[in-house]
Amino acid sequence: MADIATIVRDVADEMAALTDRGEVATYIPPLAHVDPRQFGLCIVTADGAVHMAGEAEEPFSIQSVSKVFALTQALGKVGDTLWRRVGREPSGTPFNSIVQLEREQGIPRNPFINAGALVVSDVNLAGHEPRVAIGELLRFIRYLAEDDTILIDEIVARAEQETGFRNIALANYMKAFGNLTHSPPLTLGVYFHQCAIAMSCRQLAMAGRYLMLGGLHSPGGPRVVSAQRARRINALMLTCGHYDASGDFAFRVGLPGKSGVGGGILAIAPGRASIAVWSPGLNENGNSKLGTAALERIAEATGWSVFSQAEQGLSRPASS
Amino acid sequence: MADIATIVRDVADEMAALTDRGEVATYIPPLAHVDPRQFGLCIVTADGAVHMAGEAEEPFSIQSVSKVFALTQALGKVGDTLWRRVGREPSGTPFNSIVQLEREQGIPRNPFINAGALVVSDVNLAGHEPRVAIGELLRFIRYLAEDDTILIDEIVARAEQETGFRNIALANYMKAFGNLTHSPPLTLGVYFHQCAIAMSCRQLAMAGRYLMLGGLHSPGGPRVVSAQRARRINALMLTCGHYDASGDFAFRVGLPGKSGVGGGILAIAPGRASIAVWSPGLNENGNSKLGTAALERIAEATGWSVFSQAEQGLSRPASS
Amino acid sequence: MADIATIVRDVADEMAALTDRGEVATYIPPLAHVDPRQFGLCIVTADGAVHMAGEAEEPFSIQSVSKVFALTQALGKVGDTLWRRVGREPSGTPFNSIVQLEREQGIPRNPFINAGALVVSDVNLAGHEPRVAIGELLRFIRYLAEDDTILIDEIVARAEQETGFRNIALANYMKAFGNLTHSPPLTLGVYFHQCAIAMSCRQLAMAGRYLMLGGLHSPGGPRVVSAQRARRINALMLTCGHYDASGDFAFRVGLPGKSGVGGGILAIAPGRASIAVWSPGLNENGNSKLGTAALERIAEATGWSVFSQAEQGLSRPASS
Amino acid sequence: MADIATIVRDVADEMAALTDRGEVATYIPPLAHVDPRQFGLCIVTADGAVHMAGEAEEPFSIQSVSKVFALTQALGKVGDTLWRRVGREPSGTPFNSIVQLEREQGIPRNPFINAGALVVSDVNLAGHEPRVAIGELLRFIRYLAEDDTILIDEIVARAEQETGFRNIALANYMKAFGNLTHSPPLTLGVYFHQCAIAMSCRQLAMAGRYLMLGGLHSPGGPRVVSAQRARRINALMLTCGHYDASGDFAFRVGLPGKSGVGGGILAIAPGRASIAVWSPGLNENGNSKLGTAALERIAEATGWSVFSQAEQGLSRPASS
Repeated sequence: MADIATIVRDVADEMAALTDRGEVATYIPPLAHVDPRQFGLCIVTADGAVHMAGEAEEPFSIQSVSKVFALTQALGKVGDTLWRRVGREPSGTPFNSIVQLEREQGIPRNPFINAGALVVSDVNLAGHEPRVAIGELLRFIRYLAEDDTILIDEIVARAEQETGFRNIALANYMKAFGNLTHSPPLTLGVYFHQCAIAMSCRQLAMAGRYLMLGGLHSPGGPRVVSAQRARRINALMLTCGHYDASGDFAFRVGLPGKSGVGGGILAIAPGRASIAVWSPGLNENGNSKLGTAALERIAEATGWSVFSQAEQGLSRPASS
Repeated sequence: MADIATIVRDVADEMAALTDRGEVATYIPPLAHVDPRQFGLCIVTADGAVHMAGEAEEPFSIQSVSKVFALTQALGKVGDTLWRRVGREPSGTPFNSIVQLEREQGIPRNPFINAGALVVSDVNLAGHEPRVAIGELLRFIRYLAEDDTILIDEIVARAEQETGFRNIALANYMKAFGNLTHSPPLTLGVYFHQCAIAMSCRQLAMAGRYLMLGGLHSPGGPRVVSAQRARRINALMLTCGHYDASGDFAFRVGLPGKSGVGGGILAIAPGRASIAVWSPGLNENGNSKLGTAALERIAEATGWSVFSQAEQGLSRPASS
Repeated sequence: MADIATIVRDVADEMAALTDRGEVATYIPPLAHVDPRQFGLCIVTADGAVHMAGEAEEPFSIQSVSKVFALTQALGKVGDTLWRRVGREPSGTPFNSIVQLEREQGIPRNPFINAGALVVSDVNLAGHEPRVAIGELLRFIRYLAEDDTILIDEIVARAEQETGFRNIALANYMKAFGNLTHSPPLTLGVYFHQCAIAMSCRQLAMAGRYLMLGGLHSPGGPRVVSAQRARRINALMLTCGHYDASGDFAFRVGLPGKSGVGGGILAIAPGRASIAVWSPGLNENGNSKLGTAALERIAEATGWSVFSQAEQGLSRPASS
Repeated sequence: MADIATIVRDVADEMAALTDRGEVATYIPPLAHVDPRQFGLCIVTADGAVHMAGEAEEPFSIQSVSKVFALTQALGKVGDTLWRRVGREPSGTPFNSIVQLEREQGIPRNPFINAGALVVSDVNLAGHEPRVAIGELLRFIRYLAEDDTILIDEIVARAEQETGFRNIALANYMKAFGNLTHSPPLTLGVYFHQCAIAMSCRQLAMAGRYLMLGGLHSPGGPRVVSAQRARRINALMLTCGHYDASGDFAFRVGLPGKSGVGGGILAIAPGRASIAVWSPGLNENGNSKLGTAALERIAEATGWSVFSQAEQGLSRPASS
């Protein structure tokens, strides 16, 4: 196997040459104005090395990637009782579908579709003001990334609030089934702000290390979650992290991953790497087009797919 | 980590002590008469060692586990063109749902729900008589398992045919959308016979080795499929192998797996083991209750979850 | 045929003897406290005669019966262009289903399910304050009923607002599809107040006369809507007026009708009678249990079903 | 009102001038070859007068119009117990949808969608050979129409059988839920032959007289069904007779009607007329385009809509 630095550079070069970059999300105005020619990549390996290419230090709206950190926060608060209010199955429907909620009595299929993430926000709200819950999440992400400059983009947050009619519908619909504890506007306030967190690829890859390291903050660092919980969050990312294209992502890339409509994807190679990639153009499923292509190339070049023969995969880096 | 032999024995002992064993499938008479107290387990590791416990040599009806081998056979015939006729996404609905087919114009969501497996049977039929296609599949499985005694249970096959109204509906429904090439009764003939193959845990774990070994028949043996294809079949098993409980199985066990209503499950720890477990009682999702529990225990004891830190997982055996 | 006065008295007596009166709606507190033993009936015939029995002068919350008057108001404002935003087909789903909206891109199936009634409210709002639109509707109903004492029950209106999460979800969901012109809270304000109008059976039967009289306010009175529009509103009441029990109501009663969860039903025998019945207990479909039974008896006794041989039906009164 | 003879002639002339005649059904070859320029109309009034225009004596495939006669036959055999196996509600989905069956456990929504008609065929089969049941239905229709020349088009019947995969799917699906008594091929045999009955407009309008005459075979003739049953069949035709365009047909035409993909429609003006119209071109809902337009014109010209003021409607003919 080529070394990681070479792979990172090669993949970034390859992506720079592509012209069909998908469509930038337009559903909220601030996202629509992002330059689609950007591409960033950062890989943090298990030994702590950081490899970057492209616009890896440019902050972007992490959107649904935030659901991974919010889920971790909620599991910390209520543990496995969370699963009484949200399922763990792929949905078989788009990220913002309301049909499944009617069929299943207000219990969202998993914490990574919007309805499930709203339940997670409701758990994180825990009777406080929205700004308390969102402040807590922001501090958690800063701690994971070891970077206090991470901020919420208030322009994006406001735009989400003004145009998020489907999310308002989802929240009220679950409230009707008794699956929101707080008033919908409060829960939605947390959710809209969480989606508006801005991070660079470097910050995101750093923040994802605990999922690569069996729950540890950093190599040899303190424990953030148990090894079992890290495994389970990875499992949810693999089966549900790309909405109704999760099966295809597992098939092509073979890594737990979570995408956002801002064009970012966080992918985890357990025991090996935390990878963040960003390119604003989306494919027909709402996932970053170049981001997905880059991850497919990286998985191929490194043998990091969780479905590879593990020993072979590991022996390769040793021999490189 | 305890050695595999000890884990196999301990898990079998633990399962023997459980009294709530789920419900035996009753939808076809021959399955309903199987003694629910049986439990079998076989683990074949990457070095070729075979560990068994319980009724590991007792043949049972593999039912939907056969879909893994039939899919491999179909990919060998038509390659990736298969994916024009069947998807790769979890379905979000029960194994025999017809709703999704109407919404998606006769294209089944994945090759492991019944509708998708019928398309696979239609590919494998390839213009021949049903007995040709089923003979070919049987020979393929015998070759994988290195065991020529594997047979089709004709009583089960006939019972499937006589009571399989839902499958007949699915086949005709897809035919109406033009997604079956052959006459429905012919395609169904292949499918019903494939489900009626009887295998023991030992035979099944042996037959699954190519998925653990990156596509090789056996340690150092000839190639059955490419490494990429082995990875991709594993990915499909993880995201879609347990119908509408696939997410939960990934969450709890963390291994690619395929279950059948006969109570068998084939699970793969890539690079490490091919595991077959059997117990006829099913849980509410139609998957073996004790089989699932046993696999959860095995994954925990071995650290084989694909979502574990790989190095840690591997280092453990070394340190035990 | 017995004369109408006798029929009204007999049916009221018969209903008084029934003990299984269904369940009073509990979804908003003020409705839950209504005494279920009440029953009111009023028939206004084409010659202007008014026949009453039971609590026919007791005001109740008309709830969804208001949708008939709001639809008439909206058609007056925008005519047949309304049908670009709402369909005319029975829904095949409960009154508050959101599933159909997702499948059909935010266009409700008909103006009598909640989503459709919200579009109607949005049309009636017409850029004004909610209180303007609701005031206009109230004046229209008072004019139809020739009764200026008809009021909105503000306690009910407030309770609707506080607990109407499903309706808030429906409104926001349609807004996401661009099928609401105004801000959802404004449209919902109109809708919640319209549902909270309180009327007696006498007032309701009087208000419904224009649908019996081919569009005339009263026998020999001014025209409210064209004869064609009156026919068409009757058609919609017959096919869609009882949610997912509309077919059964047509089968049993054979009259255009619109029910509300307050226990009221307005039924029209074109050319013959406007009938209002009220009893708070509901059947499993959310329609007044005794109200439905009473209308079935009335249709039988009078031969007023629109599916009867018309001449025979008419000749009967002459011979009585 | 103009007299009926004039209306019939005028409407036929008007239709002859139209050029957009919709698309002829192509799903079975024999239907695809019918000349789309044909139009036939026959009105039989309550006094027994027969008015015809266009190709009113040309036989066509009645297809789903046969469901009215088969339903009448089944109600004669098992009475209201039929309603345990089939509903009475509009479906809100296309005529051949299978989705509703899954949601509602194999109970079709009404006897006029294909699934419901298959249950009706199963009732009519009653343990006999398919040819006995279909012979009985044919004799019943000949008796109603007073015409022994009515035949089954065997070419159409065979084509239905060879291409009816969706209907085969529906039958097997209901069998899986236990809602077919006979083997699916037998039930389907009855159904396919019933759809292949060929009748002219004159024969069809004659056969429909019992629904106009409160259950009598002909003016002053013997009773075929009770007045209540005639009313109820009319109610089902109005709410469910045009599949997912039933609401629109009620809105525009206002008469109970049943359409078939052969381009025929039987419409009933209770107490006044039995109307058959035929033109092979279909609209987007699968109902005859010119047939629907002609009925809308007839209802307008005669005032026969069941939603009209009845007395006014009746007084008109007297004054003409």
